[in-house]
Amino acid sequence: MSTRTAPLSFEAILNRGRMLSDGIPFADIRAAEAVAADGSDVDWFDLWMARADFYEDLGTAAIEAGHGISGGKWLWNASLSAHYAQFMWFHDPARREAGQRRKVLLFDRAAPHFSRPGERIEIPLGDVAIPGYLRLPGPARDDGPVPCCVLIGGLESTKEESHLFENLCLTRGMATFAFDGPGQGELFFDVKLGPDFERYTSAVVDHLVDRDEIDADRIGVLGRSLGGHYAPRSAAADHRFAACCAWGACFDLSDLDSMPPHTRRGFLYVTGIEDENRAALHLRDSIDLAPVAERISCPTLLLHGAHDAIFGMEQVEKYRGGLVNADLEVQVEEDGDHCCHNMGHLVRPRMADWMADRLEAAR
Amino acid sequence: MSTRTAPLSFEAILNRGRMLSDGIPFADIRAAEAVAADGSDVDWFDLWMARADFYEDLGTAAIEAGHGISGGKWLWNASLSAHYAQFMWFHDPARREAGQRRKVLLFDRAAPHFSRPGERIEIPLGDVAIPGYLRLPGPARDDGPVPCCVLIGGLESTKEESHLFENLCLTRGMATFAFDGPGQGELFFDVKLGPDFERYTSAVVDHLVDRDEIDADRIGVLGRSLGGHYAPRSAAADHRFAACCAWGACFDLSDLDSMPPHTRRGFLYVTGIEDENRAALHLRDSIDLAPVAERISCPTLLLHGAHDAIFGMEQVEKYRGGLVNADLEVQVEEDGDHCCHNMGHLVRPRMADWMADRLEAAR
Repeated sequence: MSTRTAPLSFEAILNRGRMLSDGIPFADIRAAEAVAADGSDVDWFDLWMARADFYEDLGTAAIEAGHGISGGKWLWNASLSAHYAQFMWFHDPARREAGQRRKVLLFDRAAPHFSRPGERIEIPLGDVAIPGYLRLPGPARDDGPVPCCVLIGGLESTKEESHLFENLCLTRGMATFAFDGPGQGELFFDVKLGPDFERYTSAVVDHLVDRDEIDADRIGVLGRSLGGHYAPRSAAADHRFAACCAWGACFDLSDLDSMPPHTRRGFLYVTGIEDENRAALHLRDSIDLAPVAERISCPTLLLHGAHDAIFGMEQVEKYRGGLVNADLEVQVEEDGDHCCHNMGHLVRPRMADWMADRLEAAR
Repeated sequence: MSTRTAPLSFEAILNRGRMLSDGIPFADIRAAEAVAADGSDVDWFDLWMARADFYEDLGTAAIEAGHGISGGKWLWNASLSAHYAQFMWFHDPARREAGQRRKVLLFDRAAPHFSRPGERIEIPLGDVAIPGYLRLPGPARDDGPVPCCVLIGGLESTKEESHLFENLCLTRGMATFAFDGPGQGELFFDVKLGPDFERYTSAVVDHLVDRDEIDADRIGVLGRSLGGHYAPRSAAADHRFAACCAWGACFDLSDLDSMPPHTRRGFLYVTGIEDENRAALHLRDSIDLAPVAERISCPTLLLHGAHDAIFGMEQVEKYRGGLVNADLEVQVEEDGDHCCHNMGHLVRPRMADWMADRLEAAR
């Protein structure tokens, strides 16, 4: 599993909708397309890490020139480039780690310069620290503490990738807290994927309810892709969540063997278990909402694309059957791909509106 | 000139860099590409007006549901769709007007819902009213009146197309005022292109200096494409401008006969003169900085793309030769197309930073 294999084909992993919706500039997509088309042997990882170099230089120069807004944007572009360099690089752990580490450092340099700055917070849990970023809508309003949306990534989507979705929340008056849990982003190096993601989410809530800026009665949770499993799982375990959004249906991992090979490889990888059969068993045991679904009682939104190549439509039916005690709203987009990334401009504001409404109702 | 000709080829006018940088969603670019590829006889105008319908319905529903931020965004998407439906439709004036009028109405419905709302202002000048939108960075700061960047469009870029550039200015603490002048947008129906654009810009300044929110000593002007002519022309005539940015080099119209046919047609069209030879003469007489260039005394930035297919590099040299009394900074992007739209994510923040710095220095 840790052996370097042939580079992945560009077309297999150039997810235009996702990358553009998350903030990769179109010009960089074109550059990747051009490399793919001319058949050169530039590999994906090197291409995107070179973009990270480019944007890091721009961002550093901008900050030195006193242009913090541009500097923050470009360092974030750099971070996102490093993120996408490694996001499917499970076959090459050394470079994957290099990309992951670099993404984290670049993002941390960018965060203080955002119009609504990101505050890095490390929340202790056992022997580890859960890394996350808190952003507040602002400036401070007169009407007291604000609602907060906790954001969870997926298999290889991490807190740094949430930036534009955070902006949607901030504009709608919600604070955001995006973090990496077990198996995700920088925490992967300390904690692999396991059956207790909800412990990490609850530690985050413990922190948030102690913050004066946050209204403890108005905290929601939203998870993307595999996070579409973690968010309801967290809501099942912690009734302090007033609303829950699953951005992509992942009730369980029964689809594991039919997934695209690089995605399946990624799932096995983040378990940290070398033996493939044992890793697959661990995944199926760890990722299953069935035992906890009936404990979910807050309003829950499930958004799913009918053309999702990773999680099939039967996953949607499992949510319908399992969340018997939640006010469950299911939105299936007939033209949507995985997480409806191909129509991100339509579904992302809608999810943010849904969350804002539910948290407002909890006031 | 007013005869309907065959529809333009999609590829000739599908300016991906420009349209994406101005806010057209990528999914809509893909839909246009798909129509172009399958050889169906859907025409460009109808395709984009259908997108306007789609977004108008979304926006209307969102506003009714109390989702003003989403509603404003979608009505703006609708407006931008109608804009691009007609932007090259000079061969079909009835539909061009329908698209233009619809864009204006949709934008006016969107503007109050932007995070920083747009206030429509009509500034009287002679028999007409100059239509524009004022947006203020905010909430109100403690340090008094704010600088303001006046934004001028080009041949077929209008005030509604400035929205994302306005956002760059607002984030940097500048107010914005985008308006349509002679030959542009909705004012075209009252006033055609002429040699006195600066009268309109000065009327705008007359209004702005009377606003308590605006610092009269810190007003800049930025013009895009043909606006890269109008902005310096306005700065030459009105020394209340503390800084000037020409986003694209259009010193004069000596390139008229070598332009792409649809652009040349557009220039002739906005003169309102039926006879093509007379229209061309009128254009060459009206659009020439030579007689006024030496009167420009404020700091001036010229940004130009070396691959501009409309205005050639000799235009850049004319600015260098002509603006003898201005602190002129010239930025030529070797990989840039017209207005560097293909690298908008790089040059647009940079222009906004430049303007913010120059207006700060004028404090």
